[in-house]
Amino acid sequence: MSASSWPQAMMADHPYYPPDLDLPGYVPNKIGVPTLLASFAGAVGFVCSVTSVVARTVRPGISKGQVLTAMWFVVCGCIHLFFEGYFAYHNATMPARTDLFGQLWKEYALSDRRYLTRDSFTVCMEMVTAVAWGPLSFLIGWLVIIDSPFRHPLQIMVSLGQLYGDVLYYAIFFFDESVYGAIYCRPESFYFWVYFVMMNGFWIVIPGWIVYTSIIETAKAFRVAQGSAKMKGL
Amino acid sequence: MSASSWPQAMMADHPYYPPDLDLPGYVPNKIGVPTLLASFAGAVGFVCSVTSVVARTVRPGISKGQVLTAMWFVVCGCIHLFFEGYFAYHNATMPARTDLFGQLWKEYALSDRRYLTRDSFTVCMEMVTAVAWGPLSFLIGWLVIIDSPFRHPLQIMVSLGQLYGDVLYYAIFFFDESVYGAIYCRPESFYFWVYFVMMNGFWIVIPGWIVYTSIIETAKAFRVAQGSAKMKGL
Repeated sequence: MSASSWPQAMMADHPYYPPDLDLPGYVPNKIGVPTLLASFAGAVGFVCSVTSVVARTVRPGISKGQVLTAMWFVVCGCIHLFFEGYFAYHNATMPARTDLFGQLWKEYALSDRRYLTRDSFTVCMEMVTAVAWGPLSFLIGWLVIIDSPFRHPLQIMVSLGQLYGDVLYYAIFFFDESVYGAIYCRPESFYFWVYFVMMNGFWIVIPGWIVYTSIIETAKAFRVAQGSAKMKGL
Repeated sequence: MSASSWPQAMMADHPYYPPDLDLPGYVPNKIGVPTLLASFAGAVGFVCSVTSVVARTVRPGISKGQVLTAMWFVVCGCIHLFFEGYFAYHNATMPARTDLFGQLWKEYALSDRRYLTRDSFTVCMEMVTAVAWGPLSFLIGWLVIIDSPFRHPLQIMVSLGQLYGDVLYYAIFFFDESVYGAIYCRPESFYFWVYFVMMNGFWIVIPGWIVYTSIIETAKAFRVAQGSAKMKGL
């Protein structure tokens, strides 16, 4: 950092990047980071436990893999509908929000200030995520539990939506940095690698795997159906 | 329009909105609009004819609906890979481009200047469209012709990708206008309704219909496969 840019950085009244960013109405977080992260992890754990109990009660013979898939989609449903829905709904006033979700978003925004500045892509993508992928994720969780024929086609749809939204989210971050020199993340590697890369990376790896396996399972089902149609035709 | 804004509008050396937009290196189109639109329509017609001949040659019993679906995906493949790929590749120099594709994009940009200003979302979305949905559309065209078991799962994937990209494209256009007062389209209703709404509307309506029918077809196949598995289990 050049000496001339220090005073500006030192004067910032918030921890976000770039330091001269204007965040009207900004209120600093009061809840400590360990408490914030533990509350998020605790909620995820609770949702997983409930889903597991429901799944094994509704279908006692359900496989471990199916329970894990149901957990994944119910956790996604909660995050999309409630947490990302919170952001989509309150996008205009994020820097000033002080409830638990507001403070969680402000902690995450240390790795991406677009969540505090009403970035057009981020708001629109999160709106679709909350309104479409949220409720559909709950539905898929249920379809997995009851082993519905609609499970795999809907899995391909929602997982592809999650994957594509995340790819665009990453791509625009790096495009804006390389083309326009826009820095959205604080310089500490913890924020970049843990919050930005790892947290979002789950929605690249897991949906990618689900899309792949659902395509294979669907093709198998069509092979059986085509074979059955041919046998009836003979 | 207020009297004070006339001089600025009259001074613009390009026809795009807003009139004070800076377009470095801008070169006006030389090919007439009827020629541009006819060349695009002619190319689409040619691709449809070739696809129809290939489809009926490879599988003489193919249904009319399947030929239409194959045509749609091959046309999508050409538009995504070549036309949108052209934009993705040349995104930094669009205002200065004078070849046929450059002039076609400059005509379209009358309804959306983001194609001339290196808009981050537009470039990233078009990159994914060109690199992923382009080749996969050609593949699906072929899978439809040979009636492959992989047809429907891949149709859901690619059509959902097209649909989602288009929804975000529309959403950000209106979000930027309502929240930031950014105007991307010329005021004439022809550009808004024919270029922006209708041309992109195809990629809402048709992929939406394909996703819906493929989900229904896939669920039917799973029902048959589940029935067959139960019979074997008895």
